[in-house]
Amino acid sequence: MRDVFQQEMREVQSRLVELAELVHVSIANAVQAFNETDVVVAEEVIQNDSRIDELTIELDELAINILARQAPVARDLRIVVSALRISASLERMGDMSGHIAQLARYRFPDRVVPKGLRSTFKEMGRLDVEMAGNLAELLRTQDVKIAEQIRNDDDKVDELHASVFDKILGDTWSGETVAAVDATLASRYHERFADHAVSIAKKVLYLVTGDWTGADDEVAPRAS
Amino acid sequence: MRDVFQQEMREVQSRLVELAELVHVSIANAVQAFNETDVVVAEEVIQNDSRIDELTIELDELAINILARQAPVARDLRIVVSALRISASLERMGDMSGHIAQLARYRFPDRVVPKGLRSTFKEMGRLDVEMAGNLAELLRTQDVKIAEQIRNDDDKVDELHASVFDKILGDTWSGETVAAVDATLASRYHERFADHAVSIAKKVLYLVTGDWTGADDEVAPRAS
Repeated sequence: MRDVFQQEMREVQSRLVELAELVHVSIANAVQAFNETDVVVAEEVIQNDSRIDELTIELDELAINILARQAPVARDLRIVVSALRISASLERMGDMSGHIAQLARYRFPDRVVPKGLRSTFKEMGRLDVEMAGNLAELLRTQDVKIAEQIRNDDDKVDELHASVFDKILGDTWSGETVAAVDATLASRYHERFADHAVSIAKKVLYLVTGDWTGADDEVAPRAS
Repeated sequence: MRDVFQQEMREVQSRLVELAELVHVSIANAVQAFNETDVVVAEEVIQNDSRIDELTIELDELAINILARQAPVARDLRIVVSALRISASLERMGDMSGHIAQLARYRFPDRVVPKGLRSTFKEMGRLDVEMAGNLAELLRTQDVKIAEQIRNDDDKVDELHASVFDKILGDTWSGETVAAVDATLASRYHERFADHAVSIAKKVLYLVTGDWTGADDEVAPRAS
């Protein structure tokens, strides 16, 4: 019974890793589609999101099945419950990728990234992609140092998110309304993607170290 | 044992109702703060959000405790797992209320609602408040007719959300950039609040009827 349980727990873990890898590909493509206004890649991201949704549902069913058959307690129970929450965050990260890709599609053939913000969004996108890659690695290895990197990247994303508003609300901004709307939404999606990565990293950290640093509240969005 | 379990399940339910009622108060105050640029009420909403976060954590601990001690199966297990997910959505609804309130605080003493969008946001806010009230009632009574109302209200919120972008990206819009940014964020928060309400309503519907209508995907945001 115990062996079966351990095997099923490894199965849960490997499915979480698989899901995180799909999210990694998804955000990499979304960022490319957004920065290059590549509508073909954007379409791919949007199509692939349903695969992420399916895998999330399958993973949740497996976890609920384990709860029903194995009735885990203590740390084992926490792991299964955490898996349910981690899968929910990964699914949302997939949604954020889809939203970022969608912005490129809406504006095609115009460029979606407003002038004066190209380097900011390029760096935000790079950080999101790095975080997703690190997340897959963290889920695979449970190396707590990686969780630290994810938090550091999130701090940088938060700063860039704030700088987007500083720029579009600053005196020198001369963009059109549509550019301000796009920048606002795009920045929010990039930032939320990063928030979910941190939320997952905290859960893994908690499972590994037992140190629960509190609820994974989103940092309040800075809007002026 | 079975009696204890039933009593604990009633406790879970009554805590979900309590949480939903707090969210109802929170969104009612947030909407007032936003529409009237009332910074005192806004502050109250932001302060009270930590109470919602605390109750969510307590409820989650209770649910995990029930899983550990009672090892429920079949429908009972689904109910406990759903409670964990419903609490997560309620917590996010509290966050959205906080974000809406925060927008009022950022712009004080200026009015936060852009001209030409006052009646739109008033109606979106009214619908969000109505949905939260219905949600508490749905969790209390499990009356599936209420779930239907929540879905209908969400459709209206989605239409209003789209109309915000139509307006600020339309030819007749003459607002400043800050108004476009505020409208974009505020509309998104109102819409996400409603999405979470529908997501919870679907879960309750599923538990009552056994009819699982699919994952609670967010409707793609319309941005043009």
